[in-house]
Amino acid sequence: MAKNIKPRSEDYNQWYLDVIKAAQLADYSPVKGCMVIRPEGYAIWEAIQRDLDGRFKETGHVNAYFPLLIPTSFLAKEAQHVEGFAMECAVVTHSRLEKDPNKAGGLKPASPLEEPLVIRPTSETMIGHMYAQWVQSYRDLPILINQWCNVMRWEMRTRLFLRTAEFLWQEGHTAHETAEEAQAETLKMLDVYAAFSEDILAIPVVKGAKTDSEKFPGADTTYCIEALMQDGKALQAGTSHNLGQNFSKAFEIKFSGRDQKQQLAWTTSWGVSTRLIGAMIMAHSDDEGLILPPKVAPHVVAIVPIFKTPEEQAKVREYIRGLLVTLVGEAEVTAAATRTRGDQIESFFFDKQTHQRIVVDWRDARPGDKQYHWEQRGVPFRIEIGPRDVDAGAMVFKQRLDRSKAIVQIGEVTADWLRAKLDAMHTAMFEKARAFRDASIHAAATFDEMKEILEKKGGFVRVWFKPSREAEAKIKDQTKATVRCIPFDQAGGTGKCIYTGEETGTQVLFAVAY
Amino acid sequence: MAKNIKPRSEDYNQWYLDVIKAAQLADYSPVKGCMVIRPEGYAIWEAIQRDLDGRFKETGHVNAYFPLLIPTSFLAKEAQHVEGFAMECAVVTHSRLEKDPNKAGGLKPASPLEEPLVIRPTSETMIGHMYAQWVQSYRDLPILINQWCNVMRWEMRTRLFLRTAEFLWQEGHTAHETAEEAQAETLKMLDVYAAFSEDILAIPVVKGAKTDSEKFPGADTTYCIEALMQDGKALQAGTSHNLGQNFSKAFEIKFSGRDQKQQLAWTTSWGVSTRLIGAMIMAHSDDEGLILPPKVAPHVVAIVPIFKTPEEQAKVREYIRGLLVTLVGEAEVTAAATRTRGDQIESFFFDKQTHQRIVVDWRDARPGDKQYHWEQRGVPFRIEIGPRDVDAGAMVFKQRLDRSKAIVQIGEVTADWLRAKLDAMHTAMFEKARAFRDASIHAAATFDEMKEILEKKGGFVRVWFKPSREAEAKIKDQTKATVRCIPFDQAGGTGKCIYTGEETGTQVLFAVAY
Repeated sequence: MAKNIKPRSEDYNQWYLDVIKAAQLADYSPVKGCMVIRPEGYAIWEAIQRDLDGRFKETGHVNAYFPLLIPTSFLAKEAQHVEGFAMECAVVTHSRLEKDPNKAGGLKPASPLEEPLVIRPTSETMIGHMYAQWVQSYRDLPILINQWCNVMRWEMRTRLFLRTAEFLWQEGHTAHETAEEAQAETLKMLDVYAAFSEDILAIPVVKGAKTDSEKFPGADTTYCIEALMQDGKALQAGTSHNLGQNFSKAFEIKFSGRDQKQQLAWTTSWGVSTRLIGAMIMAHSDDEGLILPPKVAPHVVAIVPIFKTPEEQAKVREYIRGLLVTLVGEAEVTAAATRTRGDQIESFFFDKQTHQRIVVDWRDARPGDKQYHWEQRGVPFRIEIGPRDVDAGAMVFKQRLDRSKAIVQIGEVTADWLRAKLDAMHTAMFEKARAFRDASIHAAATFDEMKEILEKKGGFVRVWFKPSREAEAKIKDQTKATVRCIPFDQAGGTGKCIYTGEETGTQVLFAVAY
Repeated sequence: MAKNIKPRSEDYNQWYLDVIKAAQLADYSPVKGCMVIRPEGYAIWEAIQRDLDGRFKETGHVNAYFPLLIPTSFLAKEAQHVEGFAMECAVVTHSRLEKDPNKAGGLKPASPLEEPLVIRPTSETMIGHMYAQWVQSYRDLPILINQWCNVMRWEMRTRLFLRTAEFLWQEGHTAHETAEEAQAETLKMLDVYAAFSEDILAIPVVKGAKTDSEKFPGADTTYCIEALMQDGKALQAGTSHNLGQNFSKAFEIKFSGRDQKQQLAWTTSWGVSTRLIGAMIMAHSDDEGLILPPKVAPHVVAIVPIFKTPEEQAKVREYIRGLLVTLVGEAEVTAAATRTRGDQIESFFFDKQTHQRIVVDWRDARPGDKQYHWEQRGVPFRIEIGPRDVDAGAMVFKQRLDRSKAIVQIGEVTADWLRAKLDAMHTAMFEKARAFRDASIHAAATFDEMKEILEKKGGFVRVWFKPSREAEAKIKDQTKATVRCIPFDQAGGTGKCIYTGEETGTQVLFAVAY
């Protein structure tokens, strides 16, 4: 068992942080609440970006970039919005530093700004302001823009990836001629998120709507995808908001319609963030460390050579070279030689588009330590090759997901074979997570029953419930659970609300959430 | 002649802004000095990122992400660095907003921070702090990390893309075991920038070193690539810094060497920014508007249909559909139909990896206006197809660069034919820019001669010069020109310094610069 990782059963929270540390995904920074995303972690974000960005473009969206800083007066324009975000804004008040005469080598803020600016917590206000200038006629609609950027929300309790003061995300912002188009867009992007989560991160999700008390400040309706972590807590993995005409009113996004009359546009916004990396870790990893869904794994295979003498090393190196030529091609093997020294980790692009790599670990270290190194980093497959494997024309093939070990003949191993193995691993991860999720959705007929399930089993509890801010606040006080969503998949008919006993047509999923 | 664009000969600065506005590349934002990069402009940045990122990875670099906010005390640790940047920092002093009782609906900063934070103007300090924690042994070196992010430098005089308070860039930061490795890295990345600029943006550059008065605050040596704009002014298009051990000392990036002794690492940093888009505009565009180097053009072809009756429209549409199937394939033609309505601009991915598109403009507008629309956006090629073209099995093919017009038979037009046309356009743009640049490098033997050239012709002036802060400051006062670089390509031998008359072995390039 991994010595640097606390088992999930003992301390799930510590396990999560240990997995991140062992895999070198992220680090705390000297600025409270802000993290450093290390290369192994950032490569996962790049894979997420690449895939999602393609999906956004396939659905007709384009990217743009809006300013980091937002005038405080903008926030104040939408009443719910300011209530939701003003409490956690980083505020810029000065435009330079000068020497502090009271402190040796010290600096103090100078040149105060006329109006303080906030670092964007989200960009509805700034983008609303710009759209108002860009839209004159129905011919200018729809506007389908996405932005990849950093945002800040000053959080009191932070946790790597899941809740940090600064985080990376994408925020889509669209404006439409009609309410129907805006609603169709909102649901379309929710579908994009759900498909992405399942196809790429191997995380099954439940699609649904938020109750009023959980929706985005300023939205008419918020839709979400909810995932389940291994400790039975839920995690909101993406949201898509129908903003109605709320921001159009506040920022005067008006257009002359087909009927020549002035109308307000209908807008939406939708986003996912680096939080997805936290979800991915908690959905799949085990007590030995990270397990990466193959489609976002920066390294798909780690090859560990075994040798004692220089002769054995030469023999193993030659054999591995042949294997690499089969997997990545002669040109890439030659190109890679210019990137790294022979006593380091050599890396070879298995896919030039995704930049996914195969690595060979030539470092001066014990083979066992190397195995451990790559296992904790969640690399899907490891291959071990020693002199006897060379003689047998074979290799030891280790799978990260089930920690299985098998002898494979070198003739079997091709790029297609590897791709098929990676696909099979993805499917196995998804099925495993889905089986766990499905087994963790419980029904409850009464509030007491729900409480007991939440305490003893965790997971989602499906109940009849009449959403209300008051009831939800009381239930949260007593159980820590919140309505994760009103799932699209409704039973139909009516039942008694578990809290008030009133007859209701709505079923919801309650869970304790991250 | 374009009515919305001032000719270069009349007002080059206004021409530049008019081109950006007509092509909808960027817009001013409500925050002073900050710009909005609109989709047409951002797509160019995406193309730049995609290509450069591939080059960084091919040379063994990985990406990561470091915090936006930097403690003011970090800036103060490197003496030259703080002098260079403290004057233009955005300072965060509070962590939330609260209602301002003195102003209806107003907000004011609350919860002051213990130590003010600055928005990164560049990240040597934060990254130096983290590297100090990550590096223990020579085995941990080299670290080869790049970051794509936003930075802020509060500028007094801003200009879209060229100088804005917030801008987007990449900053590479590497740490090495030896001075030689750091120097090799610094020059390698300069070469990457030069190749990128010429191969992708079609901008010829001069490589060289900066004098002390122009180098990066905190660097031992700064290298740069310098480009020439059509008005004869120079523009620094990228820099690569050998930081020596300056930041290692300030942040204690120490390691135990092969000799078991504690040593300081040798670091480098290098960056290019959205400024490149400004350079690209000023190097290539004409009085009709933007001309885009084909490798970064979001749209490679705009097809303008000509028709009067619904029958003609149907006939033309069917013909264009056939052309599109040839160029992008049946599957993409089908997929595109789900993205746009038939009365809009239809867009088809010509290249799924780069997301470069072919568009067909079905909007309800005059064909002449559509031609104008796409011409001003710098689309490399436009195709016009009317009923008579359909009958003749042909089309009108217009090239943006030389504004030529030709009849092309439909049988000629294939994806490979189009790719060859795009490559030829790139080469023609590069050759044109190089011929202009080469004709704009003048030699001068005396200071008076240099002054006259700078006043009458502009361009680079190549002179013998003994770099000194004092002489450079005086020359700048008198001519506005600065030493753009000490070019790698030196004449050899010695000559008389144009300013002091002293014998010197150094030739430099002077120019007035953006």
